[in-house]
Amino acid sequence: MTGWVKIAGLGPGNEALVTPEVTAALAEATDIVGYIPYVARVAERPGLTLHPSDNRVEIDRSQHALEMASEGKRVVVVSSGDPGVFAMASAVYEAVDNGPSAWRNLDIQVLPGITAMLAAAARVGAPLGHDFCTINLSDNLKPWEVIENRLRLAAQADFAMAFYNPRAKSRPGKFERTLEILREECEPERLIIFARAVSRADEAVRISTLADATPEMADMQTMVIVGSSLTRTIDRDGDPIVYTPRFITKAEG
Amino acid sequence: MTGWVKIAGLGPGNEALVTPEVTAALAEATDIVGYIPYVARVAERPGLTLHPSDNRVEIDRSQHALEMASEGKRVVVVSSGDPGVFAMASAVYEAVDNGPSAWRNLDIQVLPGITAMLAAAARVGAPLGHDFCTINLSDNLKPWEVIENRLRLAAQADFAMAFYNPRAKSRPGKFERTLEILREECEPERLIIFARAVSRADEAVRISTLADATPEMADMQTMVIVGSSLTRTIDRDGDPIVYTPRFITKAEG
Repeated sequence: MTGWVKIAGLGPGNEALVTPEVTAALAEATDIVGYIPYVARVAERPGLTLHPSDNRVEIDRSQHALEMASEGKRVVVVSSGDPGVFAMASAVYEAVDNGPSAWRNLDIQVLPGITAMLAAAARVGAPLGHDFCTINLSDNLKPWEVIENRLRLAAQADFAMAFYNPRAKSRPGKFERTLEILREECEPERLIIFARAVSRADEAVRISTLADATPEMADMQTMVIVGSSLTRTIDRDGDPIVYTPRFITKAEG
Repeated sequence: MTGWVKIAGLGPGNEALVTPEVTAALAEATDIVGYIPYVARVAERPGLTLHPSDNRVEIDRSQHALEMASEGKRVVVVSSGDPGVFAMASAVYEAVDNGPSAWRNLDIQVLPGITAMLAAAARVGAPLGHDFCTINLSDNLKPWEVIENRLRLAAQADFAMAFYNPRAKSRPGKFERTLEILREECEPERLIIFARAVSRADEAVRISTLADATPEMADMQTMVIVGSSLTRTIDRDGDPIVYTPRFITKAEG
Protein backbone atom coordinates (compact mmCIF):
# COMPACT_ATOMS: atom_id res chain seq x y z
CA MET A 1 0.00 0.00 0.00
CA THR A 2 1.33 3.46 -0.90
CA GLY A 3 0.85 5.95 1.87
CA TRP A 4 -0.08 9.59 1.55
CA VAL A 5 -0.89 12.69 3.55
CA LYS A 6 -3.80 14.92 2.59
CA ILE A 7 -4.08 18.15 4.55
CA ALA A 8 -7.79 18.84 4.31
CA GLY A 9 -9.88 21.93 5.04
CA LEU A 10 -13.18 21.18 6.78
CA GLY A 11 -14.49 24.74 6.32
CA PRO A 12 -15.98 26.89 9.10
CA GLY A 13 -18.16 24.21 10.67
CA ASN A 14 -21.27 23.49 8.61
CA GLU A 15 -21.10 20.18 6.73
CA ALA A 16 -22.69 21.82 3.65
CA LEU A 17 -19.43 23.78 3.27
CA VAL A 18 -17.15 20.70 3.06
CA THR A 19 -16.03 20.05 -0.53
CA PRO A 20 -16.63 16.65 -2.15
CA GLU A 21 -12.84 16.37 -2.59
CA VAL A 22 -12.39 16.47 1.20
CA THR A 23 -15.30 14.10 1.80
CA ALA A 24 -13.71 11.59 -0.62
CA ALA A 25 -10.34 11.85 1.12
CA LEU A 26 -11.94 11.18 4.51
CA ALA A 27 -13.65 8.10 3.04
CA GLU A 28 -10.31 6.70 1.76
CA ALA A 29 -8.29 7.45 4.89
CA THR A 30 -6.90 4.90 7.32
CA ASP A 31 -5.93 7.57 9.87
CA ILE A 32 -7.20 11.03 10.83
CA VAL A 33 -4.89 13.44 12.65
CA GLY A 34 -5.81 16.84 14.06
CA TYR A 35 -6.93 19.10 16.87
CA ILE A 36 -9.61 17.44 19.03
CA PRO A 37 -12.71 19.42 17.88
CA TYR A 38 -11.86 18.97 14.19
CA VAL A 39 -11.23 15.22 14.49
CA ALA A 40 -14.58 15.01 16.32
CA ARG A 41 -16.27 16.08 13.06
CA VAL A 42 -15.15 12.84 11.34
CA ALA A 43 -17.48 9.85 11.80
CA GLU A 44 -15.94 6.66 13.18
CA ARG A 45 -15.97 3.58 10.95
CA PRO A 46 -14.18 0.20 10.80
CA GLY A 47 -10.64 0.54 9.41
CA LEU A 48 -10.31 4.17 10.45
CA THR A 49 -8.20 5.28 13.41
CA LEU A 50 -8.77 8.73 14.89
CA HIS A 51 -5.77 10.52 16.45
CA PRO A 52 -7.09 13.65 18.17
CA SER A 53 -4.45 15.89 19.74
CA ASP A 54 -4.38 19.05 21.78
CA ASN A 55 -3.87 22.57 20.51
CA ARG A 56 -0.30 23.91 20.05
CA VAL A 57 1.27 20.55 19.16
CA GLU A 58 1.16 21.17 15.41
CA ILE A 59 4.69 19.93 14.72
CA ASP A 60 4.30 16.72 16.77
CA ARG A 61 1.03 16.06 14.98
CA SER A 62 2.62 16.71 11.58
CA GLN A 63 5.55 14.38 12.31
CA HIS A 64 3.13 11.68 13.38
CA ALA A 65 1.16 12.04 10.13
CA LEU A 66 4.34 11.88 8.04
CA GLU A 67 5.62 8.83 9.92
CA MET A 68 2.36 6.98 9.37
CA ALA A 69 2.35 7.86 5.65
CA SER A 70 5.92 6.52 5.42
CA GLU A 71 4.57 3.22 6.75
CA GLY A 72 1.93 3.08 4.02
CA LYS A 73 -1.02 4.66 5.86
CA ARG A 74 -3.47 7.01 4.15
CA VAL A 75 -3.51 9.95 6.51
CA VAL A 76 -5.82 12.96 6.48
CA VAL A 77 -4.67 15.92 8.59
CA VAL A 78 -7.84 17.88 9.31
CA SER A 79 -7.88 21.67 9.64
CA SER A 80 -10.79 23.99 10.11
CA GLY A 81 -11.32 26.49 7.30
CA ASP A 82 -8.62 26.27 4.63
CA PRO A 83 -5.44 24.41 5.66
CA GLY A 84 -3.26 27.00 3.92
CA VAL A 85 -4.52 29.99 5.94
CA PHE A 86 -3.12 29.97 9.50
CA ALA A 87 -3.76 26.25 9.77
CA MET A 88 -1.98 22.90 9.35
CA ALA A 89 -0.40 23.13 5.86
CA SER A 90 2.59 25.28 6.87
CA ALA A 91 3.12 23.15 10.00
CA VAL A 92 3.29 19.94 7.94
CA TYR A 93 5.76 21.51 5.51
CA GLU A 94 7.90 22.83 8.38
CA ALA A 95 8.06 19.23 9.61
CA VAL A 96 9.01 17.99 6.14
CA ASP A 97 11.67 20.71 5.79
CA ASN A 98 13.28 19.75 9.11
CA GLY A 99 12.64 15.99 8.90
CA PRO A 100 14.26 12.98 7.22
CA SER A 101 14.92 13.54 3.51
CA ALA A 102 12.68 10.60 2.58
CA TRP A 103 9.66 12.64 3.71
CA ARG A 104 10.19 15.06 0.82
CA ASN A 105 9.06 12.56 -1.74
CA LEU A 106 5.98 11.42 0.11
CA ASP A 107 2.67 12.05 -1.65
CA ILE A 108 1.48 15.16 0.22
CA GLN A 109 -1.47 17.21 -0.96
CA VAL A 110 -3.35 20.21 0.38
CA LEU A 111 -7.14 20.07 -0.16
CA PRO A 112 -8.51 23.62 0.05
CA GLY A 113 -11.53 24.58 2.14
CA ILE A 114 -13.76 27.56 2.89
CA THR A 115 -11.66 29.76 5.15
CA ALA A 116 -13.29 31.67 8.01
CA MET A 117 -12.84 35.16 6.54
CA LEU A 118 -14.72 34.25 3.36
CA ALA A 119 -17.56 32.57 5.28
CA ALA A 120 -17.80 35.64 7.54
CA ALA A 121 -17.67 38.05 4.59
CA ALA A 122 -20.41 36.10 2.80
CA ARG A 123 -22.64 36.31 5.86
CA VAL A 124 -22.63 40.13 6.01
CA GLY A 125 -22.41 40.96 2.29
CA ALA A 126 -19.12 41.54 0.48
CA PRO A 127 -16.71 43.51 2.70
CA LEU A 128 -13.69 41.82 1.02
CA GLY A 129 -14.93 42.63 -2.49
CA HIS A 130 -11.94 44.90 -3.15
CA ASP A 131 -8.22 44.61 -2.24
CA PHE A 132 -7.65 43.28 1.28
CA CYS A 133 -5.12 41.75 3.63
CA THR A 134 -5.23 38.88 6.09
CA ILE A 135 -3.34 39.05 9.38
CA ASN A 136 -2.99 36.59 12.25
CA LEU A 137 -3.11 38.77 15.38
CA SER A 138 -1.51 36.12 17.57
CA ASP A 139 1.99 37.02 18.68
CA ASN A 140 2.81 33.47 19.77
CA LEU A 141 4.84 32.96 16.59
CA LYS A 142 6.00 36.47 15.66
CA PRO A 143 6.98 39.66 17.48
CA TRP A 144 4.13 42.05 18.28
CA GLU A 145 6.08 44.88 16.57
CA VAL A 146 5.69 43.07 13.22
CA ILE A 147 1.92 42.97 13.69
CA GLU A 148 1.76 46.64 14.64
CA ASN A 149 3.82 47.64 11.60
CA ARG A 150 1.61 45.56 9.29
CA LEU A 151 -1.56 47.10 10.71
CA ARG A 152 -0.29 50.63 10.07
CA LEU A 153 0.92 49.88 6.52
CA ALA A 154 -2.32 48.03 5.71
CA ALA A 155 -4.35 51.04 6.87
CA GLN A 156 -2.15 53.38 4.81
CA ALA A 157 -2.69 51.14 1.77
CA ASP A 158 -6.45 51.35 2.48
CA PHE A 159 -6.83 47.58 2.42
CA ALA A 160 -9.85 45.98 4.03
CA MET A 161 -8.43 43.68 6.72
CA ALA A 162 -9.36 40.24 8.01
CA PHE A 163 -7.98 39.23 11.40
CA TYR A 164 -7.57 35.63 12.56
CA ASN A 165 -7.07 34.78 16.25
CA PRO A 166 -7.83 38.33 17.41
CA ARG A 167 -7.91 37.75 21.14
CA ALA A 168 -6.70 35.18 23.65
CA LYS A 169 -6.79 35.03 27.42
CA SER A 170 -2.97 34.87 27.39
CA ARG A 171 -2.71 38.32 25.73
CA PRO A 172 -5.78 40.32 26.75
CA GLY A 173 -4.37 43.78 26.03
CA LYS A 174 -3.25 43.10 22.46
CA PHE A 175 -6.63 43.37 20.77
CA GLU A 176 -7.29 46.62 22.65
CA ARG A 177 -3.97 47.86 21.26
CA THR A 178 -5.04 46.75 17.76
CA LEU A 179 -8.17 48.89 18.03
CA GLU A 180 -6.06 51.85 19.25
CA ILE A 181 -3.74 51.59 16.24
CA LEU A 182 -6.67 51.38 13.85
CA ARG A 183 -8.26 54.46 15.46
CA GLU A 184 -5.00 56.35 14.96
CA GLU A 185 -4.86 55.40 11.28
CA CYS A 186 -8.54 55.35 10.25
CA GLU A 187 -11.66 57.50 10.69
CA PRO A 188 -14.05 56.71 13.59
CA GLU A 189 -16.86 55.65 11.24
CA ARG A 190 -14.72 52.84 9.78
CA LEU A 191 -16.80 49.65 9.77
CA ILE A 192 -15.69 46.64 11.80
CA ILE A 193 -17.41 43.26 11.81
CA PHE A 194 -17.22 40.65 14.57
CA ALA A 195 -18.30 37.26 13.25
CA ARG A 196 -18.30 34.38 15.70
CA ALA A 197 -18.91 30.71 14.82
CA VAL A 198 -20.13 31.49 11.30
CA SER A 199 -22.23 28.69 9.76
CA ARG A 200 -22.56 26.94 13.14
CA ALA A 201 -25.60 26.76 15.45
CA ASP A 202 -24.17 29.38 17.82
CA GLU A 203 -23.33 31.89 15.07
CA ALA A 204 -23.28 35.52 16.26
CA VAL A 205 -22.44 38.44 13.96
CA ARG A 206 -22.14 42.08 15.04
CA ILE A 207 -21.56 45.10 12.81
CA SER A 208 -19.93 48.09 14.51
CA THR A 209 -17.56 51.01 13.89
CA LEU A 210 -14.09 51.73 15.23
CA ALA A 211 -15.64 54.44 17.44
CA ASP A 212 -18.03 51.97 19.07
CA ALA A 213 -15.95 48.77 19.05
CA THR A 214 -14.70 47.33 22.36
CA PRO A 215 -12.16 44.53 22.89
CA GLU A 216 -14.84 42.33 24.46
CA MET A 217 -16.63 42.07 21.12
CA ALA A 218 -13.97 39.53 20.01
CA ASP A 219 -12.73 36.25 21.43
CA MET A 220 -10.44 33.58 19.95
CA GLN A 221 -13.41 32.12 18.00
CA THR A 222 -14.20 35.45 16.34
CA MET A 223 -13.28 36.50 12.82
CA VAL A 224 -12.78 40.28 12.70
CA ILE A 225 -13.11 42.16 9.41
CA VAL A 226 -12.28 45.88 9.13
CA GLY A 227 -13.55 47.66 6.04
CA SER A 228 -11.53 49.92 3.77
CA SER A 229 -12.41 53.63 3.66
CA LEU A 230 -14.93 52.80 0.91
CA THR A 231 -16.75 49.96 2.69
CA ARG A 232 -20.38 50.93 3.21
CA THR A 233 -23.68 49.66 4.57
CA ILE A 234 -27.07 49.27 2.96
CA ASP A 235 -29.83 49.70 5.54
CA ARG A 236 -32.79 47.35 5.44
CA ASP A 237 -35.06 45.48 7.86
CA GLY A 238 -32.75 43.61 10.26
CA ASP A 239 -28.96 43.79 10.05
CA PRO A 240 -27.56 46.03 7.30
CA ILE A 241 -25.61 44.67 4.33
CA VAL A 242 -21.89 45.53 4.41
CA TYR A 243 -20.00 45.67 1.13
CA THR A 244 -16.96 47.23 -0.52
CA PRO A 245 -17.61 48.58 -4.01
CA ARG A 246 -15.43 47.39 -6.87
CA PHE A 247 -14.84 51.01 -7.97
CA ILE A 248 -12.52 53.57 -6.43
CA THR A 249 -13.23 56.73 -8.40
CA LYS A 250 -16.84 56.44 -9.45
CA ALA A 251 -20.14 54.85 -8.47
CA GLU A 252 -22.05 52.84 -11.03
CA GLY A 253 -25.74 52.00 -10.86
CA MET B 1 -43.61 31.78 -4.45
CA THR B 2 -41.01 33.81 -2.56
CA GLY B 3 -38.09 34.78 -4.72
CA TRP B 4 -34.47 34.92 -3.72
CA VAL B 5 -30.98 35.59 -5.05
CA LYS B 6 -28.08 33.34 -4.09
CA ILE B 7 -24.67 34.51 -5.27
CA ALA B 8 -22.79 31.25 -5.50
CA GLY B 9 -19.09 30.42 -5.81
CA LEU B 10 -18.35 27.56 -8.21
CA GLY B 11 -14.71 27.30 -7.16
CA PRO B 12 -11.75 27.23 -9.56
CA GLY B 13 -13.20 24.76 -12.06
CA ASN B 14 -13.14 21.20 -10.76
CA GLU B 15 -16.57 19.90 -9.70
CA ALA B 16 -15.02 18.22 -6.63
CA LEU B 17 -14.39 21.73 -5.27
CA VAL B 18 -18.05 22.86 -5.42
CA THR B 19 -19.64 22.86 -1.95
CA PRO B 20 -22.85 20.88 -1.27
CA GLU B 21 -24.48 24.22 -0.30
CA VAL B 22 -23.92 25.53 -3.82
CA THR B 23 -25.01 22.27 -5.44
CA ALA B 24 -28.27 22.42 -3.45
CA ALA B 25 -28.90 26.03 -4.50
CA LEU B 26 -28.42 25.13 -8.16
CA ALA B 27 -30.92 22.27 -7.75
CA GLU B 28 -33.58 24.64 -6.30
CA ALA B 29 -33.06 27.47 -8.78
CA THR B 30 -35.49 28.55 -11.48
CA ASP B 31 -32.93 30.85 -13.14
CA ILE B 32 -29.13 30.96 -13.47
CA VAL B 33 -27.41 34.24 -14.27
CA GLY B 34 -23.71 34.74 -14.97
CA TYR B 35 -20.77 35.05 -17.32
CA ILE B 36 -21.02 32.58 -20.23
CA PRO B 37 -18.32 30.04 -19.18
CA TYR B 38 -19.64 29.83 -15.61
CA VAL B 39 -23.28 29.35 -16.66
CA ALA B 40 -22.02 26.62 -19.01
CA ARG B 41 -20.98 24.62 -15.93
CA VAL B 42 -24.64 24.26 -14.86
CA ALA B 43 -26.55 21.31 -16.37
CA GLU B 44 -29.78 22.11 -18.17
CA ARG B 45 -33.00 20.62 -16.77
CA PRO B 46 -36.76 21.22 -17.11
CA GLY B 47 -37.89 24.27 -15.12
CA LEU B 48 -34.47 25.91 -15.21
CA THR B 49 -33.69 28.89 -17.45
CA LEU B 50 -30.05 29.75 -18.14
CA HIS B 51 -29.18 33.43 -18.72
CA PRO B 52 -25.54 33.56 -19.87
CA SER B 53 -24.12 37.04 -20.42
CA ASP B 54 -20.88 38.56 -21.62
CA ASN B 55 -18.01 39.80 -19.51
CA ARG B 56 -18.08 43.39 -18.14
CA VAL B 57 -21.87 43.61 -17.80
CA GLU B 58 -21.87 42.81 -14.10
CA ILE B 59 -24.36 45.55 -13.13
CA ASP B 60 -26.86 44.70 -15.90
CA ARG B 61 -26.63 41.05 -14.89
CA SER B 62 -27.15 41.93 -11.21
CA GLN B 63 -30.19 44.09 -11.96
CA HIS B 64 -31.68 41.29 -14.04
CA ALA B 65 -31.20 38.82 -11.17
CA LEU B 66 -32.79 41.22 -8.65
CA GLU B 67 -35.74 41.93 -10.96
CA MET B 68 -36.41 38.22 -11.41
CA ALA B 69 -36.21 37.60 -7.64
CA SER B 70 -38.71 40.46 -7.13
CA GLU B 71 -41.08 38.54 -9.41
CA GLY B 72 -40.74 35.40 -7.27
CA LYS B 73 -37.98 33.59 -9.15
CA ARG B 74 -35.25 31.63 -7.35
CA VAL B 75 -32.13 33.03 -8.96
CA VAL B 76 -28.55 31.80 -8.62
CA VAL B 77 -25.87 34.24 -9.76
CA VAL B 78 -22.84 32.07 -10.52
CA SER B 79 -19.27 33.26 -9.97
CA SER B 80 -16.05 31.39 -10.34
CA GLY B 81 -14.01 30.99 -7.16
CA ASP B 82 -15.60 32.79 -4.21
CA PRO B 83 -18.24 35.41 -5.10
CA GLY B 84 -16.88 37.81 -2.47
CA VAL B 85 -13.35 38.01 -3.91
CA PHE B 86 -13.26 40.14 -7.09
CA ALA B 87 -16.44 38.49 -8.34
CA MET B 88 -20.20 39.02 -8.40
CA ALA B 89 -21.12 39.73 -4.75
CA SER B 90 -19.99 43.38 -4.72
CA ALA B 91 -21.63 43.96 -8.12
CA VAL B 92 -25.00 42.67 -6.88
CA TYR B 93 -24.80 44.85 -3.76
CA GLU B 94 -23.84 47.90 -5.85
CA ALA B 95 -27.02 47.26 -7.86
CA VAL B 96 -29.06 46.94 -4.65
CA ASP B 97 -27.52 50.14 -3.23
CA ASN B 98 -28.42 52.11 -6.37
CA GLY B 99 -31.70 50.35 -7.15
CA PRO B 100 -35.33 50.54 -5.97
CA SER B 101 -35.63 50.45 -2.16
CA ALA B 102 -37.74 47.28 -2.34
CA TRP B 103 -34.63 45.36 -3.46
CA ARG B 104 -33.04 45.91 -0.04
CA ASN B 105 -35.42 43.51 1.66
CA LEU B 106 -35.08 40.75 -0.90
CA ASP B 107 -33.65 37.47 0.39
CA ILE B 108 -30.07 37.75 -0.90
CA GLN B 109 -27.35 35.35 0.23
CA VAL B 110 -23.71 34.83 -0.67
CA LEU B 111 -22.62 31.17 -0.81
CA PRO B 112 -18.84 31.03 -0.42
CA GLY B 113 -16.57 29.01 -2.72
CA ILE B 114 -12.91 28.03 -3.10
CA THR B 115 -11.24 31.17 -4.40
CA ALA B 116 -8.42 30.91 -6.95
CA MET B 117 -5.61 32.03 -4.65
CA LEU B 118 -6.34 29.28 -2.14
CA ALA B 119 -6.58 26.60 -4.83
CA ALA B 120 -3.29 27.84 -6.31
CA ALA B 121 -1.60 28.00 -2.91
CA ALA B 122 -2.74 24.45 -2.10
CA ARG B 123 -1.27 23.17 -5.36
CA VAL B 124 2.28 24.37 -4.61
CA GLY B 125 2.35 23.95 -0.82
CA ALA B 126 1.44 26.74 1.59
CA PRO B 127 2.80 30.09 0.32
CA LEU B 128 -0.06 31.98 2.04
CA GLY B 129 0.53 30.25 5.39
CA HIS B 130 1.49 33.55 7.06
CA ASP B 131 0.09 37.11 6.73
CA PHE B 132 -0.75 38.06 3.15
CA CYS B 133 -2.66 40.48 0.95
CA THR B 134 -4.87 40.08 -2.09
CA ILE B 135 -4.81 42.65 -4.90
CA ASN B 136 -6.73 42.91 -8.15
CA LEU B 137 -4.15 44.17 -10.67
CA SER B 138 -6.79 45.37 -13.12
CA ASP B 139 -6.97 49.15 -13.38
CA ASN B 140 -10.35 49.08 -15.11
CA LEU B 141 -12.06 50.07 -11.85
CA LYS B 142 -9.36 51.97 -9.95
CA PRO B 143 -6.45 54.26 -10.79
CA TRP B 144 -3.12 52.56 -11.49
CA GLU B 145 -1.47 54.80 -8.86
CA VAL B 146 -3.56 53.11 -6.14
CA ILE B 147 -2.28 49.71 -7.24
CA GLU B 148 1.33 50.89 -7.32
CA ASN B 149 1.03 52.39 -3.81
CA ARG B 150 -0.52 49.19 -2.47
CA LEU B 151 2.24 47.05 -4.01
CA ARG B 152 4.95 49.13 -2.34
CA LEU B 153 3.25 49.20 1.08
CA ALA B 154 2.53 45.46 0.90
CA ALA B 155 6.19 44.77 0.14
CA GLN B 156 7.25 47.02 3.02
CA ALA B 157 4.88 45.14 5.33
CA ASP B 158 6.47 41.89 4.07
CA PHE B 159 3.11 40.39 3.18
CA ALA B 160 2.95 37.49 0.77
CA MET B 161 0.77 38.72 -2.11
CA ALA B 162 -1.88 37.13 -4.30
CA PHE B 163 -2.72 38.90 -7.57
CA TYR B 164 -5.99 38.45 -9.44
CA ASN B 165 -6.33 39.54 -13.09
CA PRO B 166 -2.59 40.16 -13.50
CA ARG B 167 -2.48 40.78 -17.22
CA ALA B 168 -4.85 41.72 -20.02
CA LYS B 169 -4.35 42.50 -23.70
CA SER B 170 -5.78 45.96 -23.05
CA ARG B 171 -2.97 46.85 -20.60
CA PRO B 172 0.10 44.84 -21.64
CA GLY B 173 2.69 47.03 -19.89
CA LYS B 174 1.08 47.03 -16.47
CA PHE B 175 2.21 43.59 -15.35
CA GLU B 176 5.75 44.40 -16.50
CA ARG B 177 5.52 47.53 -14.32
CA THR B 178 4.28 45.38 -11.41
CA LEU B 179 7.38 43.20 -11.68
CA GLU B 180 9.59 46.33 -11.81
CA ILE B 181 8.06 47.70 -8.60
CA LEU B 182 8.47 44.35 -6.85
CA ARG B 183 12.12 44.19 -7.95
CA GLU B 184 12.67 47.65 -6.48
CA GLU B 185 11.13 46.63 -3.15
CA CYS B 186 12.19 42.98 -2.78
CA GLU B 187 15.30 40.84 -3.21
CA PRO B 188 15.89 39.06 -6.58
CA GLU B 189 15.50 35.60 -5.02
CA ARG B 190 11.93 36.39 -3.93
CA LEU B 191 9.68 33.50 -5.01
CA ILE B 192 6.86 34.10 -7.48
CA ILE B 193 4.32 31.49 -8.56
CA PHE B 194 2.31 31.53 -11.78
CA ALA B 195 -0.68 29.19 -11.49
CA ARG B 196 -2.93 28.90 -14.51
CA ALA B 197 -6.26 27.03 -14.63
CA VAL B 198 -5.70 25.31 -11.28
CA SER B 199 -7.82 22.16 -10.82
CA ARG B 200 -8.75 22.11 -14.52
CA ALA B 201 -7.50 19.79 -17.26
CA ASP B 202 -5.18 22.46 -18.70
CA GLU B 203 -3.59 23.35 -15.34
CA ALA B 204 -0.06 24.78 -15.61
CA VAL B 205 1.97 25.88 -12.58
CA ARG B 206 5.40 27.51 -12.71
CA ILE B 207 7.62 28.45 -9.77
CA SER B 208 10.11 31.24 -10.43
CA THR B 209 11.89 34.17 -8.76
CA LEU B 210 11.58 37.92 -9.32
CA ALA B 211 14.97 37.82 -11.05
CA ASP B 212 13.78 35.25 -13.59
CA ALA B 213 10.11 36.20 -13.98
CA THR B 214 8.90 37.69 -17.27
CA PRO B 215 5.53 39.31 -18.02
CA GLU B 216 4.68 36.54 -20.48
CA MET B 217 4.49 34.02 -17.62
CA ALA B 218 1.06 35.46 -16.73
CA ASP B 219 -2.16 35.96 -18.64
CA MET B 220 -5.67 36.91 -17.46
CA GLN B 221 -6.32 33.27 -16.44
CA THR B 222 -3.25 33.15 -14.20
CA MET B 223 -3.18 33.51 -10.44
CA VAL B 224 0.13 35.07 -9.36
CA ILE B 225 1.44 34.57 -5.82
CA VAL B 226 4.54 36.40 -4.55
CA GLY B 227 6.10 35.05 -1.38
CA SER B 228 7.14 37.06 1.66
CA SER B 229 10.84 37.34 2.49
CA LEU B 230 10.48 34.12 4.51
CA THR B 231 8.78 32.00 1.85
CA ARG B 232 11.01 29.05 0.97
CA THR B 233 11.20 25.95 -1.16
CA ILE B 234 11.74 22.30 -0.27
CA ASP B 235 13.52 20.49 -3.09
CA ARG B 236 12.35 17.02 -4.04
CA ASP B 237 11.79 14.92 -7.16
CA GLY B 238 9.66 17.04 -9.51
CA ASP B 239 8.51 20.56 -8.64
CA PRO B 240 9.64 21.89 -5.26
CA ILE B 241 7.22 22.57 -2.43
CA VAL B 242 6.75 26.30 -1.69
CA TYR B 243 5.67 27.33 1.80
CA THR B 244 5.80 30.22 4.25
CA PRO B 245 6.69 29.21 7.80
CA ARG B 246 4.36 30.19 10.63
CA PHE B 247 7.31 31.58 12.60
CA ILE B 248 9.13 34.85 12.12
CA THR B 249 11.98 34.72 14.61
CA LYS B 250 12.80 31.06 14.95
CA ALA B 251 12.64 27.76 13.09
CA GLU B 252 11.02 24.81 14.78
CA GLY B 253 11.53 21.18 13.84
